[in-house]
Amino acid sequence: MDFDPTERQQHWRDRVRHFIENHVRPRMGDYDQQDAEGERWKVIDVIEEEKARAKAQGIWNLFMPPQCGRAHVDDTFEFEGPGLTNLEYALCAEEMGRIGWASEVFNCSAPDTGNMEVLHRYGTREQKNQWLKPLMNGEIRSAFLMTEPQVASSDATNIECSIKRDGDEYVINGRKWWSSGAGDPRCKIAIVMGKTDFEAKRHQQQSMVLMPMDAEGVEIVRHLPVFGYDDAPHGHMEIKLTNVRIPVSNMLLGEGRGFEIAQGRLGPGRIHHCMRTIGVAEEALAKMARRLQSRETFGKPIYQHSVWEERVARARIDIEMTRLLCLKAADMMDKVGNKAAAQEIAMIKVQAPTMALKIIDDAIQAHGGGGVSDDFGLAKAYAHQRTLRLADGPDEVHARAIARMEFARHAPGMGKDDSFSSGDLGVTR
Amino acid sequence: MDFDPTERQQHWRDRVRHFIENHVRPRMGDYDQQDAEGERWKVIDVIEEEKARAKAQGIWNLFMPPQCGRAHVDDTFEFEGPGLTNLEYALCAEEMGRIGWASEVFNCSAPDTGNMEVLHRYGTREQKNQWLKPLMNGEIRSAFLMTEPQVASSDATNIECSIKRDGDEYVINGRKWWSSGAGDPRCKIAIVMGKTDFEAKRHQQQSMVLMPMDAEGVEIVRHLPVFGYDDAPHGHMEIKLTNVRIPVSNMLLGEGRGFEIAQGRLGPGRIHHCMRTIGVAEEALAKMARRLQSRETFGKPIYQHSVWEERVARARIDIEMTRLLCLKAADMMDKVGNKAAAQEIAMIKVQAPTMALKIIDDAIQAHGGGGVSDDFGLAKAYAHQRTLRLADGPDEVHARAIARMEFARHAPGMGKDDSFSSGDLGVTR
Amino acid sequence: MDFDPTERQQHWRDRVRHFIENHVRPRMGDYDQQDAEGERWKVIDVIEEEKARAKAQGIWNLFMPPQCGRAHVDDTFEFEGPGLTNLEYALCAEEMGRIGWASEVFNCSAPDTGNMEVLHRYGTREQKNQWLKPLMNGEIRSAFLMTEPQVASSDATNIECSIKRDGDEYVINGRKWWSSGAGDPRCKIAIVMGKTDFEAKRHQQQSMVLMPMDAEGVEIVRHLPVFGYDDAPHGHMEIKLTNVRIPVSNMLLGEGRGFEIAQGRLGPGRIHHCMRTIGVAEEALAKMARRLQSRETFGKPIYQHSVWEERVARARIDIEMTRLLCLKAADMMDKVGNKAAAQEIAMIKVQAPTMALKIIDDAIQAHGGGGVSDDFGLAKAYAHQRTLRLADGPDEVHARAIARMEFARHAPGMGKDDSFSSGDLGVTR
Amino acid sequence: MDFDPTERQQHWRDRVRHFIENHVRPRMGDYDQQDAEGERWKVIDVIEEEKARAKAQGIWNLFMPPQCGRAHVDDTFEFEGPGLTNLEYALCAEEMGRIGWASEVFNCSAPDTGNMEVLHRYGTREQKNQWLKPLMNGEIRSAFLMTEPQVASSDATNIECSIKRDGDEYVINGRKWWSSGAGDPRCKIAIVMGKTDFEAKRHQQQSMVLMPMDAEGVEIVRHLPVFGYDDAPHGHMEIKLTNVRIPVSNMLLGEGRGFEIAQGRLGPGRIHHCMRTIGVAEEALAKMARRLQSRETFGKPIYQHSVWEERVARARIDIEMTRLLCLKAADMMDKVGNKAAAQEIAMIKVQAPTMALKIIDDAIQAHGGGGVSDDFGLAKAYAHQRTLRLADGPDEVHARAIARMEFARHAPGMGKDDSFSSGDLGVTR
Repeated sequence: MDFDPTERQQHWRDRVRHFIENHVRPRMGDYDQQDAEGERWKVIDVIEEEKARAKAQGIWNLFMPPQCGRAHVDDTFEFEGPGLTNLEYALCAEEMGRIGWASEVFNCSAPDTGNMEVLHRYGTREQKNQWLKPLMNGEIRSAFLMTEPQVASSDATNIECSIKRDGDEYVINGRKWWSSGAGDPRCKIAIVMGKTDFEAKRHQQQSMVLMPMDAEGVEIVRHLPVFGYDDAPHGHMEIKLTNVRIPVSNMLLGEGRGFEIAQGRLGPGRIHHCMRTIGVAEEALAKMARRLQSRETFGKPIYQHSVWEERVARARIDIEMTRLLCLKAADMMDKVGNKAAAQEIAMIKVQAPTMALKIIDDAIQAHGGGGVSDDFGLAKAYAHQRTLRLADGPDEVHARAIARMEFARHAPGMGKDDSFSSGDLGVTR
Repeated sequence: MDFDPTERQQHWRDRVRHFIENHVRPRMGDYDQQDAEGERWKVIDVIEEEKARAKAQGIWNLFMPPQCGRAHVDDTFEFEGPGLTNLEYALCAEEMGRIGWASEVFNCSAPDTGNMEVLHRYGTREQKNQWLKPLMNGEIRSAFLMTEPQVASSDATNIECSIKRDGDEYVINGRKWWSSGAGDPRCKIAIVMGKTDFEAKRHQQQSMVLMPMDAEGVEIVRHLPVFGYDDAPHGHMEIKLTNVRIPVSNMLLGEGRGFEIAQGRLGPGRIHHCMRTIGVAEEALAKMARRLQSRETFGKPIYQHSVWEERVARARIDIEMTRLLCLKAADMMDKVGNKAAAQEIAMIKVQAPTMALKIIDDAIQAHGGGGVSDDFGLAKAYAHQRTLRLADGPDEVHARAIARMEFARHAPGMGKDDSFSSGDLGVTR
Repeated sequence: MDFDPTERQQHWRDRVRHFIENHVRPRMGDYDQQDAEGERWKVIDVIEEEKARAKAQGIWNLFMPPQCGRAHVDDTFEFEGPGLTNLEYALCAEEMGRIGWASEVFNCSAPDTGNMEVLHRYGTREQKNQWLKPLMNGEIRSAFLMTEPQVASSDATNIECSIKRDGDEYVINGRKWWSSGAGDPRCKIAIVMGKTDFEAKRHQQQSMVLMPMDAEGVEIVRHLPVFGYDDAPHGHMEIKLTNVRIPVSNMLLGEGRGFEIAQGRLGPGRIHHCMRTIGVAEEALAKMARRLQSRETFGKPIYQHSVWEERVARARIDIEMTRLLCLKAADMMDKVGNKAAAQEIAMIKVQAPTMALKIIDDAIQAHGGGGVSDDFGLAKAYAHQRTLRLADGPDEVHARAIARMEFARHAPGMGKDDSFSSGDLGVTR
Repeated sequence: MDFDPTERQQHWRDRVRHFIENHVRPRMGDYDQQDAEGERWKVIDVIEEEKARAKAQGIWNLFMPPQCGRAHVDDTFEFEGPGLTNLEYALCAEEMGRIGWASEVFNCSAPDTGNMEVLHRYGTREQKNQWLKPLMNGEIRSAFLMTEPQVASSDATNIECSIKRDGDEYVINGRKWWSSGAGDPRCKIAIVMGKTDFEAKRHQQQSMVLMPMDAEGVEIVRHLPVFGYDDAPHGHMEIKLTNVRIPVSNMLLGEGRGFEIAQGRLGPGRIHHCMRTIGVAEEALAKMARRLQSRETFGKPIYQHSVWEERVARARIDIEMTRLLCLKAADMMDKVGNKAAAQEIAMIKVQAPTMALKIIDDAIQAHGGGGVSDDFGLAKAYAHQRTLRLADGPDEVHARAIARMEFARHAPGMGKDDSFSSGDLGVTR
């Protein structure tokens, strides 16, 4: 056990950190201006400019896992990133989280990351050539269509979108929402979760397919604001799918294996979100600490009021603990795989946004009226983090999973010897 | 002590309730459509239509206090509402709070209510004729310019805006923000808090003046969004005041008495906000309860999951308690005045939005993705309630006031006999 | 609606208050000394002395309800207290709660109060003569044997104690625990909840019988400490019942009606506990406020540290709200009966101890090491309040009940008109 | 960075774990019986028996640091333990925390550990021979007399006990309380903090001296219960010191250096407490999980009620995070020293007991009446953990320290480059 970053871990984190401080932070003003002045749903130039720079420097596709079980021998070289472990990447992702649009600069933003992983892991050579290559090049973007407005999608077996085979094609019908990123003009491909067999066993009804966004029958009904933010050009779309036809070769992995893919896809994605969330929380704490030192009430600087000492101390404690939990989960994924790390992944999924929301809320309070406005980015950060208590499964579903694993560990049949190891550290826990 | 509403209390509450259910709720769709389609900063017709109806029915200016210490004998009749007590009005305000724009229909929306009270209580006959009359008629709207971006305005002695006498005029220079309602094209008059004497005693430097919004030198710099919402056409404006000249007759009450007015103005206004907040919380709870009964996960309706039983029970408990505290504060204001009710007013000011935020947040969680969007009004309600932990003094300032009154009650010099009555009920507490 | 106590409400509250301040508080030292020095399980003389005084002054059996549905015409006079309403008594009970042993002085302490109500309401003339009379005279005490160690008694249908008819007798077998008060040498009678018919419908299996404590087969196995406190001589006993024989005339109300009695018994009892809890919280707040004013850290009195302002303000808010909720529940019980007030009773049952525990915990923190010792009575108050989140049904069971009533109010079939009255005030809610 | 325990870390942890499971846990019944039956203030035989076994096996004095800056070359061998790092020891201490009296079996219990460290680090050869040797052999025990009843000792400059030089002796006068362990008949020596110079600079007035417990003028006034527990024979004593005379050679380090020693003493001690607290929390969670699986309410096992899923999930998350924070703090102490790890030490000091209290409280709730009794050890664990929010400085003092370090990191003068490294991991943070 060692809490110091290795040289390699520091190396990547620092490259990302310095790039952000030198090339992303100084352009926040440009970004905000282009965002405010331009049409809402077009590409923001700043991002494309900095993407080019990051790509040229090789700080690119960092999320891509070092090795993928299912990767064909012959495509290893072609479709890989620089080979960071989850733990190494986690340290980088925290840095990216400090500024909302930094991830995209490194081609590391959701939902592309998860989609690229799926293609890498489960895609055929042909599927990779067609979609993974331009995604990895940062030429196109993608969407992930899972959640549906009519059912409680937190229980994925509720999903109703149908994917029906008709000769050499699948015909898709359904309604999806919270299809994030589908508002972007560069978004060309979507992975769609639906049911190919409504009569199969509960977890074998689902399949995932690749659906080009320009296919006939794909209709973007509207964008969904998050609190009052449209998050353009990314956007969160509601999409109607009416008799959308795709070739059967667009099936991923095979009919009835959608659940299997979903499980694999969401693990790393959750860790990525959580590490970015740590960065968000650090920024909020930094803003809070600076603001409290800049103003006075009742004859002394606000930061000397002990009620703020308590909040700042709590913020620092919660950030440190959450970061450590996240890094441990990443380390376990690297060493024993996503499945054995399932409880840790669920834990950090619940913990990270809850932690950040509290700190951002305190930071808002510290900024007075400025906090709820757009002047400090805090309200927007709050709105975004609030969605993460719902996205990829709401807190309740993950708490249920964590508790069930815990109960199993203390099940009546378990002997003392099994039980006392419950608090064990390390990957074998 | 009696917890049943009297006939008169029921009478007014029911008139408001039925009007809302019959004429406001059915038009929510119209309102949303006009709000979405029209230009952002113009009047929404639905409101003017329903205002006319409410005025015709005499459900109008309900907030106006039954008697005002300073009202001149001769203007009693002219400038009064139907004479509801604070307690009676509180019950009505809760009903209004259920729908965001309902208050305005009854000419009972902030900041006009507070401004009208100030004019009623402290205005000269001339000032009343010019500004109170059209305000009470619902012909114009108003703004209250107090908070400033450069200082911690929670300590009002920090305010820097200057109001300098120059012959028969005052010259105003300063920068204000969170001037809510100043975006409305009907907004014609503002009450401005500034300093007429920077050298006077700490609480006698401030004055309040009437400033026409079309005066030269009044520049609306920008609107401030609240979690992404512009709240148009109302708006929260940042305003620059450069050598704005007003006649000396626009001084309210007298130089150096701004603090005195502020204290008087904010008491009832806080209660109004809080009662509306109760209505907001009831709506959120109703939405949550309905949603949880409409969906299933893991083989049973969500409302049967005990984690939701706990949240719903907590919501009901918190709403009931907060309502009772609010009504008690209103009752005390009626019986012993705003000053003797100061601790109760501060308590409800802290409690109401905190309570509502928790319930709305749970309701958001119950709605999944729908919760953070605009489909159920919950995210917008959250954003608005969040501002109420800052507006009219942040929680910390009120907690400080409550605690100081509490400490005084248990001060070292106090005998046992003084101390044991601390928990007393009733107005003399 | 009126938040001022009436003359009559003040009259009784003040009589109790003054008695406590003049005759109970001054003898706290005597009590503690007798408690510390004497044998653990014998009567404490101070109590008997002050009981005599209170009885002589007619401040006695205040809890006894003004009228009881089932009371026979001829015993009205004989078995009644001074006729206070629940609301009037609630105000008195708060005063009694301020000092742990004050209730007993007025013959108003649990579990006798609940047991006397049961006897009053459901007892035969003969049962009343034999047991209610000496209880009302303060000559004997009683116990209530419901909870069992082997099952989750929070679901009362789990109870396993058997009450089997055998000729003119019932034979009782079972094990009970948390039989509070059974340690007192004056405890002569117990009401026992058991099953007379294990095959009947779920809520008709249970019966309640009167069991003399000196009956053969009644064995006090041990006392159960509460956080280290034995609460002698009262005590919380574990009792084994082995072939205990009682005459059939000791059945209350009739076989299979135990659940019905339990429901009736627990309502008022919960309110009484809760009002005493308010008094406990007031005492804790008073101690906290005084302590914080008596000490300094880091160059200023501790009470000026804003972290304490926040806690003290929160304490005052929570006490005020909880008291109002409790009084409203009492008022509803008086006006529309215990059944219609079921949600309010459940709400205050959950809220009161939760509120008090937080305040006592803060008070402990304010007292440093002194807080966890016996010097200020805070740790003992904490321990006692903690049991109230379990006694008479744990929080979870009451939250479930509250939520179910709430869900019913917003059930899918309910129209708008039903739904919008949900937040109504007053007894008809 | 690596979250897996090394072989050496596992080695020591497992030795402790297996000893506890094989020799301590099986004797819990014996211990409880001896504790209940014997006189309250004498040695419990079970402990001495198991101490002998642990000592023989070399699982002994594990807390003793591997090297001490001030240790003389010649005494290295004589006064050392097995040389575990703080990180290695932390893993062992968690295991010890699972059972209340396990630490003592390994001669690793407070306050001896802290006192031995002080002697090791600052003691003269003579002082070591006289007191450290028998302490390390487990022949005697010790006390630490710092806290005083008359002042807020959380601000150590408030301390009033005087240590006055008189010829070759110091004369001690004062009153101390919460002198834990001073009730034990084996307690032979105390370290006393007092003031040798009331006129010196604020942090140079204090000194620490060695005071034999049998010195004339040492009077144990009473024991202080924690909640209702006396914790005999250990005990928490109030001690009056009247003209206690000790030779000048009993001064530690030198006059005026008491503060310096206190700082050094408390660091590792806090970590030890915190790691034991992790073990306490694991035990509470295990008990809760087992109990919830053993009982039913409302037709299903309690563990399937989602309100318990949420609590159990939260418990697992909080334990994992707190453990990681504690281990990181230990790792920093090993690598960069106690001073550089000051913020981490303060963080874990605040976090650990807060975390454990919540989990124990939930476990109590899960056990119903059994939870507050002594049957499951939960109430006692709660009482003990509650003291840890006060001992060695209350939460407020540590929160203040954490916040001040945080504010310094974001001080106005700091550049962007300083600031963005605030969230850094690893020892240099």
